[in-house]
Amino acid sequence: MTADLSVPLGYRALDLDSLRSYVAEQPRLAECLGGAAADWQVEEVGDGNLNLVFKLHGPKAGFAVKQALPYVRLVGESWPLPLSRAHYEHEALTLEASLAPGRVPAVAHYDESLALIAMELLEPHIIMRHGTIAGTRYPNFVEDITDFTARCYFLTSDMALPAPRKKGLIGTFAGNTALCKITEDLIFTEPYMTADNNRWTSPYLDGMVAALQQDQAVKRAISRLKLAFMSHTQALLHGDLHAGSIMLTTEDTRVIDPEFAFVGPIGFDMGSLLANLLISYFSQAGHEESPGARDGYRDWLLECVSGCWTRFEEKFLALWRSNAASGDGYSKALFQDDSGKAALDAERVRYMHQLFADTVGFTGAELIRRTVGLAHNIDFEWIEEPALRAHCEARAIALARDLLADTALYATIDHLVAAVRRMESCNPLGNDA
Amino acid sequence: MTADLSVPLGYRALDLDSLRSYVAEQPRLAECLGGAAADWQVEEVGDGNLNLVFKLHGPKAGFAVKQALPYVRLVGESWPLPLSRAHYEHEALTLEASLAPGRVPAVAHYDESLALIAMELLEPHIIMRHGTIAGTRYPNFVEDITDFTARCYFLTSDMALPAPRKKGLIGTFAGNTALCKITEDLIFTEPYMTADNNRWTSPYLDGMVAALQQDQAVKRAISRLKLAFMSHTQALLHGDLHAGSIMLTTEDTRVIDPEFAFVGPIGFDMGSLLANLLISYFSQAGHEESPGARDGYRDWLLECVSGCWTRFEEKFLALWRSNAASGDGYSKALFQDDSGKAALDAERVRYMHQLFADTVGFTGAELIRRTVGLAHNIDFEWIEEPALRAHCEARAIALARDLLADTALYATIDHLVAAVRRMESCNPLGNDA
Repeated sequence: MTADLSVPLGYRALDLDSLRSYVAEQPRLAECLGGAAADWQVEEVGDGNLNLVFKLHGPKAGFAVKQALPYVRLVGESWPLPLSRAHYEHEALTLEASLAPGRVPAVAHYDESLALIAMELLEPHIIMRHGTIAGTRYPNFVEDITDFTARCYFLTSDMALPAPRKKGLIGTFAGNTALCKITEDLIFTEPYMTADNNRWTSPYLDGMVAALQQDQAVKRAISRLKLAFMSHTQALLHGDLHAGSIMLTTEDTRVIDPEFAFVGPIGFDMGSLLANLLISYFSQAGHEESPGARDGYRDWLLECVSGCWTRFEEKFLALWRSNAASGDGYSKALFQDDSGKAALDAERVRYMHQLFADTVGFTGAELIRRTVGLAHNIDFEWIEEPALRAHCEARAIALARDLLADTALYATIDHLVAAVRRMESCNPLGNDA
Repeated sequence: MTADLSVPLGYRALDLDSLRSYVAEQPRLAECLGGAAADWQVEEVGDGNLNLVFKLHGPKAGFAVKQALPYVRLVGESWPLPLSRAHYEHEALTLEASLAPGRVPAVAHYDESLALIAMELLEPHIIMRHGTIAGTRYPNFVEDITDFTARCYFLTSDMALPAPRKKGLIGTFAGNTALCKITEDLIFTEPYMTADNNRWTSPYLDGMVAALQQDQAVKRAISRLKLAFMSHTQALLHGDLHAGSIMLTTEDTRVIDPEFAFVGPIGFDMGSLLANLLISYFSQAGHEESPGARDGYRDWLLECVSGCWTRFEEKFLALWRSNAASGDGYSKALFQDDSGKAALDAERVRYMHQLFADTVGFTGAELIRRTVGLAHNIDFEWIEEPALRAHCEARAIALARDLLADTALYATIDHLVAAVRRMESCNPLGNDA
């Protein structure tokens, strides 16, 4: 254990007092905060599963400070996790800030030996999941998030980067293996077998889970997706793009916590994003004041699902058709004349079609891991009545099963949205609850 | 130019005298060679396009010594190329020796600052291309080369390596960008556009090349293959697996020169291997003593094409079904019972089917680059009569066009072999030569 929890010289986990002292010694941070260190408000928000997260308020400004621990905060020292995740988060945040300006919190300070990042305090932003549980609409969400996704993925793809720079990017994140391994195990493996980490709303979902774990088509599909996750270096991903990694107001949207960043298949991030909107959709029955009270909100969530794909696709293609497409992938030199331009555009459509198929599969994977795997969401968890929660979750599982086993049937986002609506009106558990 | 040709402290290009002195200072090498340094025979074989290659013979043993220059040897200082290629070659040779024992020359000495590798002198081995031009059969070739390919690719795939080790492997070779860029440009781009580096047997092939460069289906296909080359980290590849990278006798086969090594799509290496056998096949009309005299040898070459795929597939699958499959890809834990085992086996078949489709496309790419691009082979080049050479090359180009544009029609190796036989009896140039 000692070896696994080893930390570099100078590392120490901070508490409220030592954080205050540490920040006081950083002239730029202290100056931004204003006033004297004793005047600052410091709190540990305890919101992270993996890390320490502090909020600092001074008379002039505030910061969020995130510090990695050499283990998973939620579990403790029995689950070691390398501090290097702060390094990868800092790399990703810095790069994302340049790729998608204004869509991530600005980094104010980074300390590699403390595995600590001080960044812009996002206020009055809240974690998106809390907003959708409350039934709040975010009119700018689709435009903001698709700015982030289209720009981050296209601009780190082979169509935008010269091949040597792309390989450099792969190398930069190739060491983030411990975080990738969490995904490989918790998303792509354990939910499909008997594993101590799994949990679900029992006994209601016992039958569905047993069927899922014996469904060979599903297990073949999840294995193919896992292989793509491990071997398709398509673009720099956030790696954990769920509704807990998005903070927003009705005006502004930010993507936080890219410590799982690595170069992988774009569909993984996109599927995570769509699945979390669908989880919100299926969970509404557990949060609405009376049956049907949230129907309009459900419609808005499905508009977000549709918009998150459609606007992403439009923006990604617009970048591909622009001067940003100066990478080695699909060299424009081969497609100069009119028939060449038409051929290249046909390839772009083909590329997006394959990317959507990937997205459909990864959407299924995320729906399953949030209902059957280790890490559940408060969308479902906060539904107190187990039978009602199970009925919400059952629809997510049933849809996910089809997305995984029959991916090709979901050729467009409209097919996916229609399937969601059909699923909402059926009862996969087959009883009268 | 100075910056591009920069070399590390201590680097100097060796000549016959300085090589002799250098080796004399390496006790292990000197002892192996035996006798006094003055007794050693030293020659520069000048066989490489990129590097200096020396042969050393002493009374007791011999070595081949390969030294990278800071530029492409064949072109000169106007084409800089980093010395780091010796580092990647050494990494690959060392790894391949452990993966496929006896199939690569053993490394005896490596000097990073001189970009120099001393290795086992392969005698009486010859470069495979010389042997097939002479019409020599190599009864062990298929078994030997498929030992190399199946073991190197499977054992560096996600099915064999735990995910963190696979990412480590990707990182180890991610810096070999300059060599990959040569491939990206010379194989996947320039032959399909007007480019100074291109050359072909003119005027005979002018029409075919013009048609190829306006064939949108071909250009779409080559662009997809290029994207896969850049973004599918499937296994550690040799990166340049043609008949000039194989040395053999009728007893023994070795794979040399892996300086293009990187983690990429297996089909790239497999296609290079098959294409070079097909180039030998199509070139036989230029080397046989009288028309038809090499028909039996043609049959042997097609048996090699068939065997190189079939035995590779058998051996790759055997490894996948063995305890060597302990990686994170296709976790066996998901497929424990009988129906699970059957499902996993169906996935293996699917994987090989996709791998063959990749191979078909990359075979087409290699055939084109060797007839239209910069680097041609002596199989065709040594055919002195241009019209005859063009007729041989035209069949390779016509087949390649179909492999690229209609890949799906070549579902099995038997389809490919049948297409080769059909092509041999037709005349793509449409005249009476």
